[in-house]
Amino acid sequence: VKVSIPKGTQDFLPAAALPRRYVIDRLIEGFEAYGFEPLETPAFEKIETLLGKYGEEGEKLIFKILKRGEGAQAGEADLALRYDLTVPLARVVAMYPELPRPFKRYQIAPVWRAEKPQRGRYREFYQCDADVAGSTSPVVEIELLTMAHGIYAGLGFTDFTLQLNHRRVLSGLIHAAGIDPGLEVGTLITLDKLDKVGPDGVRAELLERGITPPQLAKLDGLLTLQGTNAEVLEALTTMLAGHAWGLAGLDNLRTILTGLEHAGVPEARVVVNPVLARGLGYYTGAIYEVVLAGFSSSIGSGGRYDNLVGMFSGRPVPACGFSFGLDRMLLLLGERGLLPKQTTRTQVLVPVYSDAVRDETLRLAAELRAFGFRVDVYPDPGKLGVQMQYGTARGIPFAAIVGPDELANRQVTVRDLRTRAQETMDRSGVIAWLQEALAREQLASRSEEGD
Amino acid sequence: VKVSIPKGTQDFLPAAALPRRYVIDRLIEGFEAYGFEPLETPAFEKIETLLGKYGEEGEKLIFKILKRGEGAQAGEADLALRYDLTVPLARVVAMYPELPRPFKRYQIAPVWRAEKPQRGRYREFYQCDADVAGSTSPVVEIELLTMAHGIYAGLGFTDFTLQLNHRRVLSGLIHAAGIDPGLEVGTLITLDKLDKVGPDGVRAELLERGITPPQLAKLDGLLTLQGTNAEVLEALTTMLAGHAWGLAGLDNLRTILTGLEHAGVPEARVVVNPVLARGLGYYTGAIYEVVLAGFSSSIGSGGRYDNLVGMFSGRPVPACGFSFGLDRMLLLLGERGLLPKQTTRTQVLVPVYSDAVRDETLRLAAELRAFGFRVDVYPDPGKLGVQMQYGTARGIPFAAIVGPDELANRQVTVRDLRTRAQETMDRSGVIAWLQEALAREQLASRSEEGD
Repeated sequence: VKVSIPKGTQDFLPAAALPRRYVIDRLIEGFEAYGFEPLETPAFEKIETLLGKYGEEGEKLIFKILKRGEGAQAGEADLALRYDLTVPLARVVAMYPELPRPFKRYQIAPVWRAEKPQRGRYREFYQCDADVAGSTSPVVEIELLTMAHGIYAGLGFTDFTLQLNHRRVLSGLIHAAGIDPGLEVGTLITLDKLDKVGPDGVRAELLERGITPPQLAKLDGLLTLQGTNAEVLEALTTMLAGHAWGLAGLDNLRTILTGLEHAGVPEARVVVNPVLARGLGYYTGAIYEVVLAGFSSSIGSGGRYDNLVGMFSGRPVPACGFSFGLDRMLLLLGERGLLPKQTTRTQVLVPVYSDAVRDETLRLAAELRAFGFRVDVYPDPGKLGVQMQYGTARGIPFAAIVGPDELANRQVTVRDLRTRAQETMDRSGVIAWLQEALAREQLASRSEEGD
Repeated sequence: VKVSIPKGTQDFLPAAALPRRYVIDRLIEGFEAYGFEPLETPAFEKIETLLGKYGEEGEKLIFKILKRGEGAQAGEADLALRYDLTVPLARVVAMYPELPRPFKRYQIAPVWRAEKPQRGRYREFYQCDADVAGSTSPVVEIELLTMAHGIYAGLGFTDFTLQLNHRRVLSGLIHAAGIDPGLEVGTLITLDKLDKVGPDGVRAELLERGITPPQLAKLDGLLTLQGTNAEVLEALTTMLAGHAWGLAGLDNLRTILTGLEHAGVPEARVVVNPVLARGLGYYTGAIYEVVLAGFSSSIGSGGRYDNLVGMFSGRPVPACGFSFGLDRMLLLLGERGLLPKQTTRTQVLVPVYSDAVRDETLRLAAELRAFGFRVDVYPDPGKLGVQMQYGTARGIPFAAIVGPDELANRQVTVRDLRTRAQETMDRSGVIAWLQEALAREQLASRSEEGD
């Protein structure tokens, strides 16, 4: 019988599931250190909750669920798998007026998009989002970015920067250049490509979009703007002279930068990037991406979006969030050797050597567990070689064996499954031996991390 | 705008998500103490993987996903949400021959069934399964039951029993009574109702099913069989005299009981229940349920099913598992006061009293977090009363406040948000004060648990 997994989805076998959990646990710790609380929503929503929210292209990617019973025959769908975690957040904010304001929630959960599967792009993937709904204070951005900094640094990333910009600044600049508001979105898309196509590429594309040479001249400073954050802000202030909207955005950006400094984020980690545009529609204030030297995609991003979360609640709900890219983080942490090396959580293998020693083996396993060891009992009596090979293949470091001789002498043989070194000792000494051996393992893996 | 959640699904707001995570974390600890490893599979499978696996009634409950693009117009489905975690396990065993044998995996994940929603029955619910694929050894059953015992006891349940029976014993008894094999399933269904309808009810239903009075007479001993496990086993041995199949099952059951004793499970917790039948089809050996005094449904169950996991792999794969009922466990733990009382993980609220103290507030929050406190910064300057009320509503125990006076004097006001007692102290004393206060909290909650 041939069987397979749906296109664009993945199984995480134990060796892959463990590092995922390691990173997710670090995210949860980080979120909770900043007062975010867990939220869980169903995998699917009513279809009308999702339709009309993701644009024409996005909507095509929604997985729709057939009606059951009668409706099923007509091919009608009444439910759809969630496409992101933001629309469910908006639904929750609308449905539960008893939630605290601001409402700070995190959600780490799969979302589903019927994209063409590619290397590193899946149809089921996790989003790891922290959002604050109900506050316009710049402290929200400061906290989110400080949290993100702490999480990336805590995972061991050393070469990342928080790239920061502001939608009001961008739209102020576009307005100050006299560009038609209808061309704003296109202009942002083109500016965002500066990294890839260079200043000349951007210039050509802007002219193609219908921007006039005098308008381009006013924006041109952006394309080559370099310097410290203070110098960049200074230049932007000049470019925005007289444009209250853009200057207010710049002020907001300054407040955030000052706050980050007081919150302890090293200055060198924070870069004002005046062409960062972050996708399209919904951002209304600060926007940010976390990038790694030499890696083209961001490993996290977010921004303020004050007009989205209120969509179901009938009142405006300002909001701001940060989304961590779990798959990319795992990839890069792996490449950098920053993931735990263990392929199993099991510490001790206890094989049932033969039926005759089964009872004593079970007693030994119970005792080890009572002392907090994570123990796998290999259930099938048989060749010790096969049993030990199973333990080695799983990456279990130690075995504790009771054979007929050991049983007769109230002894246990302990074995290091990597080195095959083994030692037979009195039953009463096993706990201490294993405790010491595992403590040495931990020390060794810590000093490796320190390399 | 009116918005709602799909029928039969639930949102878990923070106060509900936290106890769920508490129980799930205890399950993970328990699974890993017994050598089980995490497995994650996609939420949906190819539709052909799921069809034909759950019987006619089950199949109607499968949520089917519409094809995208062209196919969508025809109303065709090519994917379906997983209905349980066992079929995905069978698929994984078939797809990855490199997996260790036996393969011990746990999976804690939602499954979806389009059942008529009722109190306590949802269309999206979690299954928490530990299974061993690839061993026929009774040590597997012993380990699973010992693990289950440890998990329930560790959560604080004191009034549970492991009810144990064996499909071979049951089918041996039915065969020994001369009942047509075609009536076996029906007979099991009826026997399983003994608790609800009593011996007379079972007798009447068996006769209705076409069992003859002499056949019934041979089974009748089962309906009133009581006594210690040894007495019950003794009686079953007599009833099965000469039936090798049933006697082998009984031997297997005896081995499991002896093993549980050596593994440290108290004898009083284990009850041989000769009419326990556990649903239908697929069990082939030991079957078990965990029941609580005075609660009609089981809070966990499982058994051996040697013919299921091999369905995709083209070779027989014996298997045995235990499934924890998360929702029922949560309900009962809540009723018994065995869930953590905290409604938030946040320990300290730090309000931004005014824009003028923002920077110092951010520094204070950073310092508290550096010392490991989980801190929520209330971002909006304003009335202290509103800020404190927010903290109280969320259940945050303490606040640390920097107002203009505190800023001037390098002080901080710490406040117990329940008692409203507060104290202004030198900035340098805050860490120690909060550490002590939180340590007292923990002690208090522990001694409450001890009540």
